[in-house]
Amino acid sequence: MRHFLSLKDFTKQEIEEMITLSLDIKKNLKSGKRDLLLNGKTLAMIFEKNSTRTRVSFEAGIYQLGGVGLFLSDKDLQLGRGEEMRDTARVISSMVDLVVMRTTSHTRLLEFSEYSSVPVINGLSDLYHPAQLLADYLTMVECGKGENPVIAYVGDGNNMAHSWLMLASIMGFELRLATPRGYEPSVTIYQDALSFAEESGAHIVLLSDPREAVDGADVVATDTWTSMGQEEEKQQRMKDFKGFCVNTKLLSYAKDDAIFLHCLPAYRGQEVSDRVLEGSQSVVFLEAENRLHVQKGIMVWLEQKIG
Amino acid sequence: MRHFLSLKDFTKQEIEEMITLSLDIKKNLKSGKRDLLLNGKTLAMIFEKNSTRTRVSFEAGIYQLGGVGLFLSDKDLQLGRGEEMRDTARVISSMVDLVVMRTTSHTRLLEFSEYSSVPVINGLSDLYHPAQLLADYLTMVECGKGENPVIAYVGDGNNMAHSWLMLASIMGFELRLATPRGYEPSVTIYQDALSFAEESGAHIVLLSDPREAVDGADVVATDTWTSMGQEEEKQQRMKDFKGFCVNTKLLSYAKDDAIFLHCLPAYRGQEVSDRVLEGSQSVVFLEAENRLHVQKGIMVWLEQKIG
Amino acid sequence: MRHFLSLKDFTKQEIEEMITLSLDIKKNLKSGKRDLLLNGKTLAMIFEKNSTRTRVSFEAGIYQLGGVGLFLSDKDLQLGRGEEMRDTARVISSMVDLVVMRTTSHTRLLEFSEYSSVPVINGLSDLYHPAQLLADYLTMVECGKGENPVIAYVGDGNNMAHSWLMLASIMGFELRLATPRGYEPSVTIYQDALSFAEESGAHIVLLSDPREAVDGADVVATDTWTSMGQEEEKQQRMKDFKGFCVNTKLLSYAKDDAIFLHCLPAYRGQEVSDRVLEGSQSVVFLEAENRLHVQKGIMVWLEQKIG
Repeated sequence: MRHFLSLKDFTKQEIEEMITLSLDIKKNLKSGKRDLLLNGKTLAMIFEKNSTRTRVSFEAGIYQLGGVGLFLSDKDLQLGRGEEMRDTARVISSMVDLVVMRTTSHTRLLEFSEYSSVPVINGLSDLYHPAQLLADYLTMVECGKGENPVIAYVGDGNNMAHSWLMLASIMGFELRLATPRGYEPSVTIYQDALSFAEESGAHIVLLSDPREAVDGADVVATDTWTSMGQEEEKQQRMKDFKGFCVNTKLLSYAKDDAIFLHCLPAYRGQEVSDRVLEGSQSVVFLEAENRLHVQKGIMVWLEQKIG
Repeated sequence: MRHFLSLKDFTKQEIEEMITLSLDIKKNLKSGKRDLLLNGKTLAMIFEKNSTRTRVSFEAGIYQLGGVGLFLSDKDLQLGRGEEMRDTARVISSMVDLVVMRTTSHTRLLEFSEYSSVPVINGLSDLYHPAQLLADYLTMVECGKGENPVIAYVGDGNNMAHSWLMLASIMGFELRLATPRGYEPSVTIYQDALSFAEESGAHIVLLSDPREAVDGADVVATDTWTSMGQEEEKQQRMKDFKGFCVNTKLLSYAKDDAIFLHCLPAYRGQEVSDRVLEGSQSVVFLEAENRLHVQKGIMVWLEQKIG
Repeated sequence: MRHFLSLKDFTKQEIEEMITLSLDIKKNLKSGKRDLLLNGKTLAMIFEKNSTRTRVSFEAGIYQLGGVGLFLSDKDLQLGRGEEMRDTARVISSMVDLVVMRTTSHTRLLEFSEYSSVPVINGLSDLYHPAQLLADYLTMVECGKGENPVIAYVGDGNNMAHSWLMLASIMGFELRLATPRGYEPSVTIYQDALSFAEESGAHIVLLSDPREAVDGADVVATDTWTSMGQEEEKQQRMKDFKGFCVNTKLLSYAKDDAIFLHCLPAYRGQEVSDRVLEGSQSVVFLEAENRLHVQKGIMVWLEQKIG
């Protein structure tokens, strides 16, 4: 049995398998064919943080595959009353077939998965957002940017930056990660990426100049400067991220046919300008939709590994 | 593609089509036959306001048709974090097949529907409650009050009053709408109704005397005096609506076989007496159940228009 | 039509029928066969109290049987706005096939069931937890403790104690119920149990010494000392329940192959020691999983009675 907690647990070939599976599943859905690959299966959806995309994509996705999602906010669980995570994990996993967890603590996710008798999927943690990154990669593939892309990530060294580090270093891509000083990604995760890169031939660079990162890139990605739970730092962050807004000027340094990615929600005028977000290079809504397709691929892949 | 935001967007014939479809679907359900007309389809249910009837009827309804409902309270969405409605609309509609939205702002509903790639249903807004009105009309038809009825609406000039104005003026019914002074329906909506009435032959009258409205009516309808969000006005409203309670005395002015409608929740002793609500002329629980059947009709009708 | 509100409404034979049905359903699930015994059916899940086990087990269970659960927290209902229970009951039950209710007031549950047109299941009330007790009994049967067991319940004279009184007195078991003074079960329920015991031959004893209760027992059960809503009494209860912790010492007085039951959530170091909870005699996670299987049995049994 496998979990899906971070891309670092997967090989390049396994990631390619999931993408291929997702493309097939998407094609069938678009042609009106219902793939009942998870018929009768139940997915517990444990959400410690609110969500639009993650919620809707997992719940619609499992249903399209013949199963059903059980949405459990932290208010619906006994964890708040002091039940130990290992007990909750054993109980819930004895009743369902799959679990997706969205948590503020990757440590809690690891503890849950250790005691779970069924596959656990990371629906976003403070450290990683691997389902989003597979959706991003699927989008790149569909836009013809899947082969040896040069990727510029401009913004906060957060869970999205960490996940880009994992994707690029495992797949052998070139990633330029530009953050303001003080907002660099985790050193440990960066070092993991460098070690994966040695094997894959990936080229990973940390920068502090967004323009240098974007120069000649195929893919330009960013994320909100103020993630959920950081609201009180917002004013400081607005200052510190000055110059990191992906606007038409910054995007113009990328290749002419570069695509713009953003995992949303977007704050226009902060990390991205309205013109870029709504412009012809932006594929953010395709990217959002691909959460649906790629997560179906992940769930089916995990179920196949149980077989 | 069509949305279902207000009855004013539909012709008499289209409304009749939805009622016929609803009657068929209801008959099949009662005879134990499952109509899988929306097999595998997903319905996003965006609820900014709580609800019993709307929630249960849509979620049970889509499931009986072979699909599933995804219940999203505003706490579950990123809208609260400042995501723009147009972004939320594009993302959610890219993942599901239908959307129902219950909102305190018809403007927000319009904005959502403008950016949605799938049909959007009004599950109640501050201006209209069209799904409820179709349930009311279905109930009238089943009770033999579908042909040229005289309808008395007694109470607040709110979204229910507005929806009665639309239904009656499009279908060509006689509607007497009695409200206390200061609680009249929106002038714009009243004028829309008058203009529909010219074509349909409907007879629309605004009154301030409940007895005059009820006199000889086939259908007597009311609604709570204090809708959700108006709790602080309650004491004032209790005074202003004096004399507007539908009790046995007031109902006695209607035809002997008149039916009593109320969209619920009901507050006994305020807008309706316990004797009327529980009496033989009250069809309020049939009316509530018909939410289920008519909304299935609406969803199937909208899907048929997508082709 | 039957409801499932308390075990006292069922005969020994009916309880055996539900257990047999549950065992069959469990066996089929484990062998990968999907029993669509409730195909297309909808279960309204009205939860006034949060829950992990009850929520997940009912929602996964109804789906595995071909239906769907509609989770309604009290925030999602109009009851909070003052709608009368009888109205809510009539409306909801007109739209769904089954209802499960988790409430702080058994009286409210009785009122709901009185006005419901479909079977109502007690998912936990302040007085009883009958679905849990059937899961416990199923667990006992699977562990070879189904025939004439001697059962020791050690702890609070709460809804679990009440339900043990019902199960044991109807089935003809020996039950020793040890509580601290002041935490005895309801006198009325105890007297009901004594009257059932006369017929069944059950042996029911109330004690205040845990060791006396456990001595030679086949089954040792406990529950949290501080149930939801009693948080402010916690310090006092911690004192009053001194000596009632099921630790290895206390458990050693039971038979060597005695099993330990706990409906969870468990608070290690309070009502149970970590060593007992995680020890080889503990079957608490099997017991939790059996909630899923036994509640499927209950739902199918109730539907069969509608026939």
